[in-house]
Amino acid sequence: MQERSARTRAEIIDAAQRLFGHNSYENTSVAEICQQANVSKGAFYHHFPTKHDLFLELLDQWLDGIDMGLQVSRQQVDNVPQALLSMARSTEAVFEMADGRLPMFLEFWSQARLDPAVWEATIAPYRRYQDFFAELLEEGIEQGDVRPIEPQVGARMLVALAVGLLLQSVLEPTEEHWAEVVEKSVDILLQGLIRRSA
Amino acid sequence: MQERSARTRAEIIDAAQRLFGHNSYENTSVAEICQQANVSKGAFYHHFPTKHDLFLELLDQWLDGIDMGLQVSRQQVDNVPQALLSMARSTEAVFEMADGRLPMFLEFWSQARLDPAVWEATIAPYRRYQDFFAELLEEGIEQGDVRPIEPQVGARMLVALAVGLLLQSVLEPTEEHWAEVVEKSVDILLQGLIRRSA
Repeated sequence: MQERSARTRAEIIDAAQRLFGHNSYENTSVAEICQQANVSKGAFYHHFPTKHDLFLELLDQWLDGIDMGLQVSRQQVDNVPQALLSMARSTEAVFEMADGRLPMFLEFWSQARLDPAVWEATIAPYRRYQDFFAELLEEGIEQGDVRPIEPQVGARMLVALAVGLLLQSVLEPTEEHWAEVVEKSVDILLQGLIRRSA
Repeated sequence: MQERSARTRAEIIDAAQRLFGHNSYENTSVAEICQQANVSKGAFYHHFPTKHDLFLELLDQWLDGIDMGLQVSRQQVDNVPQALLSMARSTEAVFEMADGRLPMFLEFWSQARLDPAVWEATIAPYRRYQDFFAELLEEGIEQGDVRPIEPQVGARMLVALAVGLLLQSVLEPTEEHWAEVVEKSVDILLQGLIRRSA
């Protein structure tokens, strides 16, 4: 019985992801999700009190996946510049998932300034990534592999770069091989733009 | 009479900017804009056939201002790395205006994947900035001041960084002095993250 409940929950999440991605969060009703997932409204509301809660669940799953990827990349290599490159190389899956989820995230974001609860849910992952990268850069500075920049500023840059490239990929999914652009970008960021005499 | 018409138009734009910024584009009606601007609905629709057209006008004004700033920074200095720093230093005004307009832009963006007309309006400025920075970097590479990176990738990075930092500033306007973060970020981008032996 518990297994069946978990399956129902997963089916609701799958259906919602497809529908939100195609028709936007706003334009998708709970009724449509139930129809697509082949579950009753009762079952839906048993798992998710509101459509909003379902949205937060999707967001969390995506962000948890990113967190896990970052932790794995960090543990695989000792050297911080190498760890950043390794993170860049593992963004393929993030971009694939973004195409379905980021538009929702944008809708959500545009509401964040108007609703304190939404603002909190939106800002939390941001701050988590910010802290993660600031710590990582600090470690790199201590180990002597990273220049003595301000770690907070460097972290803002890395988060901004990731979000900015994700947004571009959502607007023009077929224009570039986005995971490759990320990898090359991190390489440029590591090396700098200014030409030095050899 | 024509002067009065221009003043009316400016008053509508002012009122819309305030209301969209505070209450979002979705939650602002044409009636509220007319009341705030103290103009008749007839006058409103004379200038803007739809609320959507008014939104596009606001977006254009903001983006035109950014374009002008970029051109000025580019002409002031010959050296491309210096031009990028100069652009970073002039972002104060962009951030100030973003606080009122970017949330609208986000609402718009989240619809861009669903509506081809909106998609076109959203993607056009992106492509303009992309081309601008790619040309600039190419010039720097030719002049020998910029490393021989792929100009298209470098341009994607600069646009991503700008958009990503703008988004962070909208979510946490008081958390940082954002124009300063941009300036430091461009400096880090120019120099790179990896520590080199002196």
